[in-house]
Amino acid sequence: MSILASDSIFILGIDPGSQTTGYGLIKKQGYKTFYVASGCIRIGKYPWPERLKHLFLAVNEIIAEYKPAMAAIEQVFVGKNVASTLKLGQARGAALVAMACADLCVAEYSARAVKKAVVGYGAADKQQVQQMIKALLNLNGLPPIDAADALAIALCHAQTAGLRL
Amino acid sequence: MSILASDSIFILGIDPGSQTTGYGLIKKQGYKTFYVASGCIRIGKYPWPERLKHLFLAVNEIIAEYKPAMAAIEQVFVGKNVASTLKLGQARGAALVAMACADLCVAEYSARAVKKAVVGYGAADKQQVQQMIKALLNLNGLPPIDAADALAIALCHAQTAGLRL
Repeated sequence: MSILASDSIFILGIDPGSQTTGYGLIKKQGYKTFYVASGCIRIGKYPWPERLKHLFLAVNEIIAEYKPAMAAIEQVFVGKNVASTLKLGQARGAALVAMACADLCVAEYSARAVKKAVVGYGAADKQQVQQMIKALLNLNGLPPIDAADALAIALCHAQTAGLRL
Repeated sequence: MSILASDSIFILGIDPGSQTTGYGLIKKQGYKTFYVASGCIRIGKYPWPERLKHLFLAVNEIIAEYKPAMAAIEQVFVGKNVASTLKLGQARGAALVAMACADLCVAEYSARAVKKAVVGYGAADKQQVQQMIKALLNLNGLPPIDAADALAIALCHAQTAGLRL
């Protein structure tokens, strides 16, 4: 079975972070979902504009390679620390620009909605998300936390958008 | 005199905002600075990812047209409103990605440093900045506030970097 069969689409999930951004790709085929790829984009210790460029180019590359038809991103949790929210916002902006430039329509979900969709419980912890992602996508091992979160966002979108191909 | 004379460089200043981003270009020739262009990028009422794309593409276009050798951006004022800081951060991220992708080295200045460099007084108000920009760059009229701020950032960089061409 070709992974690019015409009755299937790829969904990209992005979990933005100012240090590490998780990405996850799933394939939706009818009612079924399959794991395609996932990973973490680490933006290192370069000057800040360089880090944003690195993140933008990495998301660009992922989109060029897998050609997702849909994308979803986690809504940033607005914490009390304004300085770190500002950094996170810039990283999110860089990822969103890459997705919008590829003409992807980007859905947004709160962390709570993502956990509810995947674990069935909005206050689930990260380890529970990892375990459920491993089970739902038939993975051999636990994916890294950021990658698991990104896959969970993609799965949440696959469920929520109610895609029936 | 050609505006692209080999002994001159263009400096781009960006004043990022979640609604309107100001840009300003000046030419630095020896000790002198000249006005080149300025304006406001309004990102309208599209869905948020589209707005960031519009801002990114607009900054891209400005860089492609004027080919600045240097760029400077205003440090975002970290206010108490975390939600608006998050939006501002994303807009700033989109502008920074455009500058970094053009391999521009981007300097950052606080609003206070910019006002001090241009007006001589760190707590100057926006109207004073407009007036000084009009005087320093021999403009016929007052530039819009966002454009004046962006020109002020470019002038601040021209002074601070102590460029002697």
